[in-house]
Amino acid sequence: MEQTTALQEAWKAARFPLSGHGKRNVRVLTEAFREMDGLTDSDMYGKGEVIEAFQTKMAAVLGKEAAVFFPSGTMAQQIALRLWCDLKELRRVAYHPLCHLEIHEEDGLKRLHHLEPVLLAQADRLITLEDVQNMGDGIACLLLELPQREIGGQLPDYGTLKAISAYCREKGIALHLDGARLFEVLPYYKKTAAEVCALFDSVYISFYKGIGGIAGAILAGEEAFVRESSVWKRRHGGDLISLYPYIVSADYYYDLRVGRMERYYEQAVELAAWFNGCHEAVRTLPAVPVSNMFHVHFARPKEQMEPLLAGIAAATGVAFTARLKELEGACSFELSIGDQYGAAPKEAVAEAFRLLGQGLAAV
Amino acid sequence: MEQTTALQEAWKAARFPLSGHGKRNVRVLTEAFREMDGLTDSDMYGKGEVIEAFQTKMAAVLGKEAAVFFPSGTMAQQIALRLWCDLKELRRVAYHPLCHLEIHEEDGLKRLHHLEPVLLAQADRLITLEDVQNMGDGIACLLLELPQREIGGQLPDYGTLKAISAYCREKGIALHLDGARLFEVLPYYKKTAAEVCALFDSVYISFYKGIGGIAGAILAGEEAFVRESSVWKRRHGGDLISLYPYIVSADYYYDLRVGRMERYYEQAVELAAWFNGCHEAVRTLPAVPVSNMFHVHFARPKEQMEPLLAGIAAATGVAFTARLKELEGACSFELSIGDQYGAAPKEAVAEAFRLLGQGLAAV
Repeated sequence: MEQTTALQEAWKAARFPLSGHGKRNVRVLTEAFREMDGLTDSDMYGKGEVIEAFQTKMAAVLGKEAAVFFPSGTMAQQIALRLWCDLKELRRVAYHPLCHLEIHEEDGLKRLHHLEPVLLAQADRLITLEDVQNMGDGIACLLLELPQREIGGQLPDYGTLKAISAYCREKGIALHLDGARLFEVLPYYKKTAAEVCALFDSVYISFYKGIGGIAGAILAGEEAFVRESSVWKRRHGGDLISLYPYIVSADYYYDLRVGRMERYYEQAVELAAWFNGCHEAVRTLPAVPVSNMFHVHFARPKEQMEPLLAGIAAATGVAFTARLKELEGACSFELSIGDQYGAAPKEAVAEAFRLLGQGLAAV
Repeated sequence: MEQTTALQEAWKAARFPLSGHGKRNVRVLTEAFREMDGLTDSDMYGKGEVIEAFQTKMAAVLGKEAAVFFPSGTMAQQIALRLWCDLKELRRVAYHPLCHLEIHEEDGLKRLHHLEPVLLAQADRLITLEDVQNMGDGIACLLLELPQREIGGQLPDYGTLKAISAYCREKGIALHLDGARLFEVLPYYKKTAAEVCALFDSVYISFYKGIGGIAGAILAGEEAFVRESSVWKRRHGGDLISLYPYIVSADYYYDLRVGRMERYYEQAVELAAWFNGCHEAVRTLPAVPVSNMFHVHFARPKEQMEPLLAGIAAATGVAFTARLKELEGACSFELSIGDQYGAAPKEAVAEAFRLLGQGLAAV
């Protein structure tokens, strides 16, 4: 077992954690199954009502011909890129330097699929149309992540997105959407999921970020592409006899929360303003959020901020985060608005920010 | 949705299906979670009490240093073989022609890991010590499946197993156990799981065969091997943020059923005798089961047997199977004893066999 820090303890004990939907515990499962008929049949290796109905539903939401449920986005996206490479008879794919496939998957794409990524843009900024125009030949697929999570959840403007899509179509480059947080960006774009997805040839979405399910992903696209992805799902060991624990909960929390994304977004804008107005040593990235998420940067070292934040949580019940990422003489954390932020009393939040400003002034 | 046959309908409607533990429906999940504390934390990407405690428990059961939970056996076994190949700096593995990796995984081993299988023995018989001695050089790992499912669940005698193990150790060939049905063979061998596993360098076990859980697998072996397998689990997209729906149910049904394996085995022997005594056109493989499973072969075409079996189910409530495998002028099915066989009244079973014998005599 990993050792827990004082900040993690403070987070766990806090009455008002500002990020997320609540604890990831067994209740998340039992709540989703409370109303389920116990006689509902399991899916069986990708077949059966429970999986097929959900796939059909999500294909319609995303405006695609077909969709297939995967246990993880890691599996779904590696397979999507592999399929595009096989179809185009090329081995190169392009994505951001902080793409999930590049930094969180132990190089599965390279070690299992032998694909060669081309990194576009600098790590601290979004991919531009110019980056795409200059990426060179021999690229089967471009992956765009909306929002770009590792830089605070930034988004290209919609015009740029359309221009990149048009360019890729013209050049015969497949465009894949890492839409782990797709529903979270729709209020900012003022678009439906299907409208955004129409710019892409294939789309992955996740059910445990803003949706708050247990795990699981959908990969959507044209019929033949999606059918072939199921074959690769089996090769990866993801074609489980039963995926319904994830599917039922994905469906339940999708219905529960997809309509709340506008509220989460507005609350993220509100909360980011609190941070940015609190002290000059605090800034958010982006300055004004474009989804339910943003990063908070402190121009103070982690070992100064940890006791300060733990103390604020103890004093006010308001916890900003469970962990800080160490940077050079500074630190940061990620915040994603879910159901918890709205449950925190405004006075407690105000007091927490007063203490944060005071504490930063003192250190 | 696939079309259901009359035999499948008869199976679903039957009061006394003789195979398995019961329907794979949502109750399997809700029963496992009924006594769980809702505040129990989820596992998080392979960490946390719920996954670590179960891994420790299963490592002890199997007598291995360490164990890791996988969403599927497909993933666990490909990774085990890959690790042995990387360790031995060889690309060849040996297994039975009807090995799960060869016939049920869409060639994931070849397409993802680029390993080359060497098929030992003819498809209709077990691997012998002689096969192993003659398999040639350059083989990193030999996989043995106990029992050999696709030929009715046959087993080598324990002496052969020990001799194969000793030979592999002498030659530096890793020996991997496909123990999807390991607990089911222990009553025949009169050994503990740890005693059998001591003959092998790595072991995979499954939780939805005789154990009757929802899905999931354990891979066990030496500490370093198992640790490295977790890295590959992430590469495959199997390192889900939460695996607890499978882990909790695996643990629950393991505790519930591992002590029943002797009974399932004895009942399989009893039921096979019914089949073999019923008519000369019926025989089981093996003739006397060595685990809870066996195959039933009818020397009659599928289209004759389907209505006969559906009719018997309608008349007696006793269903033998939901589907028949077509063979040349004949057909077969697999039977695995679980909780359901014991619930069928002996008179109903006797009447079903009387009708089966009568029906076979008539066609």
